[in-house]
Amino acid sequence: MMIVMKQDATEDEIQAVVDRVEGVGARTHRINGDELTVLGVLGDREHVMRLELEGAAGVDKLVPILKPYKLASSQIRHGEPSVFEIGGRKIGGSNFALIAGPCTVESREQTLGTAHTVAAAGATLFRGGAYKPRTSPYAFHGLGVEGLRLLAEAKAETGMPIVTELMDVRDLEPVLEVADVIQIGARNMQNYTLLTELGRAGRPVLLKRGLSATLEELLNASEYILKEGNEHVLLCERGIRTFETAYRFTLDLTAVPVLKELTHLPVIVDPSHAAGRRDLVQPLSLAAAAVGADGIIVEVHPNPDEAICDGPQQLVADEFAAYAEKVGQAAAVAGKTISTLAAAA
Amino acid sequence: MMIVMKQDATEDEIQAVVDRVEGVGARTHRINGDELTVLGVLGDREHVMRLELEGAAGVDKLVPILKPYKLASSQIRHGEPSVFEIGGRKIGGSNFALIAGPCTVESREQTLGTAHTVAAAGATLFRGGAYKPRTSPYAFHGLGVEGLRLLAEAKAETGMPIVTELMDVRDLEPVLEVADVIQIGARNMQNYTLLTELGRAGRPVLLKRGLSATLEELLNASEYILKEGNEHVLLCERGIRTFETAYRFTLDLTAVPVLKELTHLPVIVDPSHAAGRRDLVQPLSLAAAAVGADGIIVEVHPNPDEAICDGPQQLVADEFAAYAEKVGQAAAVAGKTISTLAAAA
Amino acid sequence: MMIVMKQDATEDEIQAVVDRVEGVGARTHRINGDELTVLGVLGDREHVMRLELEGAAGVDKLVPILKPYKLASSQIRHGEPSVFEIGGRKIGGSNFALIAGPCTVESREQTLGTAHTVAAAGATLFRGGAYKPRTSPYAFHGLGVEGLRLLAEAKAETGMPIVTELMDVRDLEPVLEVADVIQIGARNMQNYTLLTELGRAGRPVLLKRGLSATLEELLNASEYILKEGNEHVLLCERGIRTFETAYRFTLDLTAVPVLKELTHLPVIVDPSHAAGRRDLVQPLSLAAAAVGADGIIVEVHPNPDEAICDGPQQLVADEFAAYAEKVGQAAAVAGKTISTLAAAA
Amino acid sequence: MMIVMKQDATEDEIQAVVDRVEGVGARTHRINGDELTVLGVLGDREHVMRLELEGAAGVDKLVPILKPYKLASSQIRHGEPSVFEIGGRKIGGSNFALIAGPCTVESREQTLGTAHTVAAAGATLFRGGAYKPRTSPYAFHGLGVEGLRLLAEAKAETGMPIVTELMDVRDLEPVLEVADVIQIGARNMQNYTLLTELGRAGRPVLLKRGLSATLEELLNASEYILKEGNEHVLLCERGIRTFETAYRFTLDLTAVPVLKELTHLPVIVDPSHAAGRRDLVQPLSLAAAAVGADGIIVEVHPNPDEAICDGPQQLVADEFAAYAEKVGQAAAVAGKTISTLAAAA
Repeated sequence: MMIVMKQDATEDEIQAVVDRVEGVGARTHRINGDELTVLGVLGDREHVMRLELEGAAGVDKLVPILKPYKLASSQIRHGEPSVFEIGGRKIGGSNFALIAGPCTVESREQTLGTAHTVAAAGATLFRGGAYKPRTSPYAFHGLGVEGLRLLAEAKAETGMPIVTELMDVRDLEPVLEVADVIQIGARNMQNYTLLTELGRAGRPVLLKRGLSATLEELLNASEYILKEGNEHVLLCERGIRTFETAYRFTLDLTAVPVLKELTHLPVIVDPSHAAGRRDLVQPLSLAAAAVGADGIIVEVHPNPDEAICDGPQQLVADEFAAYAEKVGQAAAVAGKTISTLAAAA
Repeated sequence: MMIVMKQDATEDEIQAVVDRVEGVGARTHRINGDELTVLGVLGDREHVMRLELEGAAGVDKLVPILKPYKLASSQIRHGEPSVFEIGGRKIGGSNFALIAGPCTVESREQTLGTAHTVAAAGATLFRGGAYKPRTSPYAFHGLGVEGLRLLAEAKAETGMPIVTELMDVRDLEPVLEVADVIQIGARNMQNYTLLTELGRAGRPVLLKRGLSATLEELLNASEYILKEGNEHVLLCERGIRTFETAYRFTLDLTAVPVLKELTHLPVIVDPSHAAGRRDLVQPLSLAAAAVGADGIIVEVHPNPDEAICDGPQQLVADEFAAYAEKVGQAAAVAGKTISTLAAAA
Repeated sequence: MMIVMKQDATEDEIQAVVDRVEGVGARTHRINGDELTVLGVLGDREHVMRLELEGAAGVDKLVPILKPYKLASSQIRHGEPSVFEIGGRKIGGSNFALIAGPCTVESREQTLGTAHTVAAAGATLFRGGAYKPRTSPYAFHGLGVEGLRLLAEAKAETGMPIVTELMDVRDLEPVLEVADVIQIGARNMQNYTLLTELGRAGRPVLLKRGLSATLEELLNASEYILKEGNEHVLLCERGIRTFETAYRFTLDLTAVPVLKELTHLPVIVDPSHAAGRRDLVQPLSLAAAAVGADGIIVEVHPNPDEAICDGPQQLVADEFAAYAEKVGQAAAVAGKTISTLAAAA
Repeated sequence: MMIVMKQDATEDEIQAVVDRVEGVGARTHRINGDELTVLGVLGDREHVMRLELEGAAGVDKLVPILKPYKLASSQIRHGEPSVFEIGGRKIGGSNFALIAGPCTVESREQTLGTAHTVAAAGATLFRGGAYKPRTSPYAFHGLGVEGLRLLAEAKAETGMPIVTELMDVRDLEPVLEVADVIQIGARNMQNYTLLTELGRAGRPVLLKRGLSATLEELLNASEYILKEGNEHVLLCERGIRTFETAYRFTLDLTAVPVLKELTHLPVIVDPSHAAGRRDLVQPLSLAAAAVGADGIIVEVHPNPDEAICDGPQQLVADEFAAYAEKVGQAAAVAGKTISTLAAAA
């Protein structure tokens, strides 16, 4: 860490800061500039952080140098990306995960029908929501355990691994019975209770970036999971909140190459929720694949006009195979191939 | 709701939308403009919303007219603000709540000392954290139940009602034993599990606005609590995330008069977390009082340099009485008086 | 336009609004809901807008239905995109414009060298700055007319049309002598003086989106140019300002398909300024091409480490041909081909 | 400046950076941490900045330590605020400037009537727009020179100094004939041509913060004026663009105390444009005064319902005296008094 002293800091103030830093066992390295003094601090970051020197007399600002997360950082794997296997499908590296399925599990017919469609088109994982976070308390909140049962049936019929969301730590057990990947929604990205429990549960987690979370905060949130010994975290960019009102969220594709430099974890993109409109899903999917994402997660419905939730953004099941082909072409430009069971074999 | 059709929508497309809307029991009212057609929809909002017509052929956009929240709205009380009583102190109306105490409960001496200081200066409620949400998993997370015990002691000694944060629904019982007001932090504003349980618990709730939550989302979140029958919700503006990096968050004081028009619930401001710097806390507190807030919640510590967390933003206990006097002057300009037990008597 | 009345608006207030609207020659269409009244307004938008009814007694809000821009809208060309020809190169439609060159014209060798490199790699237009807007008054501000002279020489040698920025309306004449396309920077997007003069000058304009401009504001700005009779406007997304600090700006690729629905004008993407880092330029360029942009504008330098400005984001000239090939592959996925003189022939 | 090297930077890369820095005459100071190396750089900031080392091999990031602006900084006046005199009224220090008048000069009656009203209520300066920047090219753009003539008449009748906006450098001469303070609008904050000319003109300037400008950018913009020898710059916070759509802009009052720490220049707040709604203007004005602003600039109209522009946000002239009295009370809490000719005498 660097401690930048104010231009009018006195020698006594500078010495007091040095004493406090050295009092917790760190070393200081003083640089006397023409206009101000900077102290380089060497030693345990946590100890120095706890001093909270931002408010100390004569201190202008603290400049952190090291990243606050460790297990999520690229350095820990010397720049090598993590490659996982989920239900026999490879995730990460040159493998592109095409994750598809309905927003919400509504009925047996809708769920199994969609599962067969996306399986036939070569999707990697099947997604479907049994528990739905909704802005309004008066909206539909998912089928719950009945929804989980239908997902289990889809998995049994098609062999596809399941991605589904968990919102309440008290639902962890039934979700663990079905889910191959547990999704944490954007609004729960900093629900530390949930993150810690998922770290302990050990099942792969797809962690969505909060609407206004910085990449550093996203990586810190993943660290809550990793710290408990669960190494299988997939990060997911799903659109951030900006001033623009012409679309629901602003998909932040710059986050993809930047995350891939900062962390070894795979980076997935969710173009459906960002856009909120079906006609934007394909162009944004192609862009996500071309920018180098490790996969995308999209919503598909046999008849979106009749969907209980998020109909306007769900792809039409009949058009999914053509869409998947285009996505595969864009992924190829970035040097990746859609991951399937066959591909892994 | 208004349904704006595209300029090139066909008569068939318009008719199909009319049929779907009327199929769920609502009525449509058609306006044929020179360039496009608009359909006014009368009837149950929820039924029409579920049609999710945004994606239907020929539809340009849906324009909601009514607010999605009901119990939180001003209309439900015909424009009269809610006035609560918490431990004998009035909250809302012309009463200004000065809520003060340490960021974190650290020790018996620090907690009781601060409680006596703020009580003597005429504070309304005493705040202190036993459970602390932290961005990094490696940071200090609070004393937990031991912290709650110290808060109970502070209450027994000073008679001040207690405000403390709940993060994990599994800690609800011990928190209920001590807290007069349960605080929900910004990162949990849309933790619907927690909101629903607090609605059922019936204890007053101080609900902080999420870092990037719109006022409508904040009111929707309060509706989760109100819907369960708990009428005692205090909303709290604590700074939003913007592009500016010169300070931690941007305190959004425009939210105060706008919320007071939209809802009957009291509106509190937290200048400490927004600013993150002690020297900004007093000017922002005066501004919050002058803009018409129903109270402020601030952090105070006997020796902030030694605080375990958020030291740089905590007010110095010795200076609190002078600060409280200035805040009272600013509240007076907005027609409010700091609320105390004596004032209520 | 729709005028939404407050829930407690009186009959007199509603009638007063109707009278004012009809007083300027528009018609009203009244919808009486259970909870409130909405007035549909038919007639000249400008006249009604000037009434500024937002503040009138009983009015809750105004909801505009029609877009405020006309000449830029898709409707005016019935959904057909504009295709221009600039120096024999086609812009728009299935043509992808690869615009490349140095950030700043620094010397004869650097300018001509880069021009030959990008010409050989099949770039569509040559860009280079003679006048540079800089945040600090103490920074380098470009070579001015000497820079323009070097651009003219590059054009004479390579035949490539020139894109260069204009900041001061008093420099218009010398810029017109060289520029085939005049660039307006993000900070000048709402410099209405400049926009109007460029509308009159008639030369094609590349108009960059302001750092926090909505798409509607960008289209309104283009309307200032179009209104003067200049039909050749290229819109340019170059990154918006958000809360994220991990990169300079957040490239908003969702803007591309949304703009292409709203307007017939070509949409170009500038990945260099958004990212501010060379290693991000290629992934973002591929994403821009895959999302359906009509072109990209990138910075190239023979030796970026020695560049006078923006060195860290400039592509290395020696690597440009390989880069251009990848961009061509990504454009192909979106159905476009890099536009060259040969391609147009 | 600090140069943070990457964790895997080689000794050769570090040495190459040292060589480049020392090659422009600066000195380096090396700190070898356990995980990475940091180079402190001492010497001419501009020279080192021009190296643009962000992209150099082995460099992680550059951390600027000194502020890029000089003449605007607090240090240059050793923490003393600037106090100006404009038409005999003091601006800055303990003087609170109440600047009021119509958004747009519409007619002789409206202009003179408002001028007399605000003068009688003790306003400090009179504002009125002759040239109006408008988002749409089809909107009203002001009376131009005829408007300036009416402002001159208002000044002659009431003795109040005039604040009016300049948009086009070609209008500078007629504006100089009337204006005591020249206003630069938010959209022109980085119109460097205009800033430089105003620096040369020497007349006091009220410089509005851009919609998404950081405080550092605002201070850099003021530096363009100061650098030309014009010391009389008033900074103006007028609301920033955020994700919130419940109001037009988010008034950033945290900027006031932070600017007052960073610069000696007076800081004015414009609550009218931020809010866009009359009912918010008084609460925000009181907050601005309480937070420690050096003044506010508000819009007043004898009959806002008939105003040509911005009617909904203009205060009603008849209510201005009562409003001014409340503002004076709030300013008093922050230790300031409304500045008038009498007060200065």
